[in-house]
Amino acid sequence: MNLHIVSENNFPTAAGLASSAAGFAALVRAVADLYLLPHSESELSQIARQGSGSACRSMFGGYVAWNMGVQHDGSDSVAEQVAPTSHWPQMRAAILVVSAAKKGVSSTAGMQHTVATSTLFVQRAKHVVPERMQKMKDAIQQRDFATFADLTMKDSNSFHAVCLDTSPPIFYLNDTSRAIIRLVEELNRVAGKTVAAYTFDAGPNAVIYYLAENERWIMALLTSCFEGVPGLEGVATKDKEEKNVLLENFDVWLLKGVIDGVSRIILTSIGEGPEKVDDKRSLIDAKGEPLKGRKAS
Amino acid sequence: MNLHIVSENNFPTAAGLASSAAGFAALVRAVADLYLLPHSESELSQIARQGSGSACRSMFGGYVAWNMGVQHDGSDSVAEQVAPTSHWPQMRAAILVVSAAKKGVSSTAGMQHTVATSTLFVQRAKHVVPERMQKMKDAIQQRDFATFADLTMKDSNSFHAVCLDTSPPIFYLNDTSRAIIRLVEELNRVAGKTVAAYTFDAGPNAVIYYLAENERWIMALLTSCFEGVPGLEGVATKDKEEKNVLLENFDVWLLKGVIDGVSRIILTSIGEGPEKVDDKRSLIDAKGEPLKGRKAS
Repeated sequence: MNLHIVSENNFPTAAGLASSAAGFAALVRAVADLYLLPHSESELSQIARQGSGSACRSMFGGYVAWNMGVQHDGSDSVAEQVAPTSHWPQMRAAILVVSAAKKGVSSTAGMQHTVATSTLFVQRAKHVVPERMQKMKDAIQQRDFATFADLTMKDSNSFHAVCLDTSPPIFYLNDTSRAIIRLVEELNRVAGKTVAAYTFDAGPNAVIYYLAENERWIMALLTSCFEGVPGLEGVATKDKEEKNVLLENFDVWLLKGVIDGVSRIILTSIGEGPEKVDDKRSLIDAKGEPLKGRKAS
Repeated sequence: MNLHIVSENNFPTAAGLASSAAGFAALVRAVADLYLLPHSESELSQIARQGSGSACRSMFGGYVAWNMGVQHDGSDSVAEQVAPTSHWPQMRAAILVVSAAKKGVSSTAGMQHTVATSTLFVQRAKHVVPERMQKMKDAIQQRDFATFADLTMKDSNSFHAVCLDTSPPIFYLNDTSRAIIRLVEELNRVAGKTVAAYTFDAGPNAVIYYLAENERWIMALLTSCFEGVPGLEGVATKDKEEKNVLLENFDVWLLKGVIDGVSRIILTSIGEGPEKVDDKRSLIDAKGEPLKGRKAS
């Protein structure tokens, strides 16, 4: 029996934003549902991982850990849910799409190259990541945003450090990415507390995490830097107070020029894994063909 | 007795090009010469190190190692000459000045911050650098450019990796620096052998090492990418053959756009440490005043 698979993705693809992880997780879940296969999310997670490593994480909702494992065949490299969305639903993310250009290196090939050639990688794999993983699980259990943010930023930098230590070096961050790092640092300084955390996956795009209670600070920053960038249309500059405090205290040269490198902003929040949708939201018509007006891939 | 010191530097200052190292080495040597102090280069090297760490290297000519040392007071952190210039005089360097803007972080303060906060630094200090240092000394003794180049590029990337792993991260490389890394990699690929090595100190400027015998390859690259940039005036595109091979085989998009980020090119070669010059080349007149028309600092 052949399957006609229609897929749609509202994230930039091959830009280091885990779009393939989302796609593979959805595909595996959809096929399992279609055949009424008995399965646990853990089993599906292991299958999805074969399409894209990080797809094993995307099978779950909420806060998910991807444990490295110790087996050479990767059989114990599995994802597990650390906490459901309901445990800490206030988490938000602003994704700053820095470049939708294709990556020079696929993240899977890049990481294999890093493991093979970076002399700093062993330290990261044996010591840095395991320690941070446990601290991060604790921070999530305790809903401790300051620690969550500190670990997030440090680990992002550590990951990109071993990419740079690869031979030849792998560059995912560009000048715009680095400018965003400085913006977030300066925002936390001006706010007088940790209100935002940056992280970068295998590409130049930034993900900025924040809590709903501090949304006004993040929106003050985004509307100051990225006026007119798609994705910010609905964001009113209603919170004059934070914006004024921000602009009065900010190292203003940091605000200039960043806008040129950011093509789109996606505002989102912590959510669930793949969901079975009803027919009204289906991408196919009754005959199994892509719905008209939709671009199928 | 007061001293009237007149100093001149033909290198961009505070741009991560070790201009302070050159200045402190010259200052210490000049003062020692003035007072006819009995001294060895090693003793002067230890004194110069107090002004700028890397000044301890600049006291010697030729190939110089700066040994890390194990004492907390730094007393055994000394430089030594690995080989004199005459051992391998064919070494050349092209310095691509990417930005003469002042660094955000002084290299001394930056490194102290890295030691304190980078979780990857310990691996670099304990294992990576000591092993590479020995291999580099061997490569110089054997005049093995391929190994010299490989170690140079890897260690540059490793250094910038631990800078990035600092909290908050230190960025010395920018998009132009990274484009130059790609240019050098591509040049070596097209040449079919290692003809060039890049390295970056505490700033975005590139130093490209090459041997005199491969100068035509490097000039083919530089004249292809940086036409009109100050410092290349005397370089004729006389070697059509390499340039044609280069342009026919090069990933040409790498060549475009880099020129905007490079303000000046300095072509130099391995040389000697501080030298006492005769009166005709002095910066002061008979009364000890700066010579007219010279800018004193």
